[in-house]
Amino acid sequence: MDSDIKKLTAMIQAFVAERDWAQFHDPKSMSMALAVEASELMEHFTWLHTPAQVESYLSEHREDVADEMADVMVYLLELMAILNVDPVEAVERKMKKNAAKYPVEKSKGNRKKYIEL
Amino acid sequence: MDSDIKKLTAMIQAFVAERDWAQFHDPKSMSMALAVEASELMEHFTWLHTPAQVESYLSEHREDVADEMADVMVYLLELMAILNVDPVEAVERKMKKNAAKYPVEKSKGNRKKYIEL
Amino acid sequence: MDSDIKKLTAMIQAFVAERDWAQFHDPKSMSMALAVEASELMEHFTWLHTPAQVESYLSEHREDVADEMADVMVYLLELMAILNVDPVEAVERKMKKNAAKYPVEKSKGNRKKYIEL
Amino acid sequence: MDSDIKKLTAMIQAFVAERDWAQFHDPKSMSMALAVEASELMEHFTWLHTPAQVESYLSEHREDVADEMADVMVYLLELMAILNVDPVEAVERKMKKNAAKYPVEKSKGNRKKYIEL
Repeated sequence: MDSDIKKLTAMIQAFVAERDWAQFHDPKSMSMALAVEASELMEHFTWLHTPAQVESYLSEHREDVADEMADVMVYLLELMAILNVDPVEAVERKMKKNAAKYPVEKSKGNRKKYIEL
Repeated sequence: MDSDIKKLTAMIQAFVAERDWAQFHDPKSMSMALAVEASELMEHFTWLHTPAQVESYLSEHREDVADEMADVMVYLLELMAILNVDPVEAVERKMKKNAAKYPVEKSKGNRKKYIEL
Repeated sequence: MDSDIKKLTAMIQAFVAERDWAQFHDPKSMSMALAVEASELMEHFTWLHTPAQVESYLSEHREDVADEMADVMVYLLELMAILNVDPVEAVERKMKKNAAKYPVEKSKGNRKKYIEL
Repeated sequence: MDSDIKKLTAMIQAFVAERDWAQFHDPKSMSMALAVEASELMEHFTWLHTPAQVESYLSEHREDVADEMADVMVYLLELMAILNVDPVEAVERKMKKNAAKYPVEKSKGNRKKYIEL
């Protein structure tokens, strides 16, 4: 198995299977768990207002922030597996849609365009 | 490059660079964008109450749901790159912590334990 | 002051003023704080799958759940005050829009309609 | 009825009753809907980086932002009613807890304290 996404997904699925937790992991609840982890990641940054504050915070809490991002990844890869969605194909297809939606000539460095599109 | 995570990350970074958008992608705003995408994924499932309703919904909207998961992945991989966090290392380290927190003998099929831990 | 919304808002604003926290409470960060609290509320329900499980959970954790809803209300009322939005007017105006969007004759008990509208 | 919170709650409950939607409004799904609305509010601010950008955005989109806050209020008041939680009592009780958690002498203008507490 050369794909690191497949390797991580297999690791996560083994973890869930050992604990017999698949019975709790319906798509609706999984989407909530994923959103909760995304919110916990966001919580780290809520009251940081300047790049210097972010830098200083990360110098002390980088692993905590990395853990939250890992939690998002774990739920995301498991949910993709549950829904039979291939992560690489899904991202490649979505990036093509994004490229059509945000053509370079209109989007380049364009903050207003960026927000309104 | 054998790693599919590195391949996807490079694709995302090229997309951002072509549009000169890195200037807008500070960690705080990125964490918000990621949470917004996680919420859009969740929105699909909000009013589905039974497995049959989920199944029926997915039969018509699978690509929309896959697109939302792809959006989460795109922001997640870009943010990890911005914060110099290796996705594979981060997930492997977090899964070790999870294994210590939820030992198989205590967690197996145990809903109550599952919730309270 | 007869309005209980105004009374609560004044209480919250006094709390913030005593701590000199208004300097941290810009709209962007406040919207994140509000979303984080909404997520903490949601976290209570993530792994509850049946009405009986919800009922049982609430019998033990009702005050915790009430606290999370209060946190959402606190940030919401403060943000409305910061943005000079009158809560009663805003809700009444939005409910009129909702009534136009979901006419009774089309929406009544109609799950499919409900989801797709 | 002098309480404007009770008045708004009654308006929302009448809206739901006319459409026979209470059958869909279990606490779990309601908590998701509330989080989705909080995220839609947050989405307005995601790519605004300076107070001037926020000000300029609000000058064009104030009603849209007010509508999102109203949506959060609508789901929050309905969920509080479903769970038999009195909004005024819940906020007053939580604010007392907050006052104990963040004593003025330690919290005043103290950003670091603010984040870590």
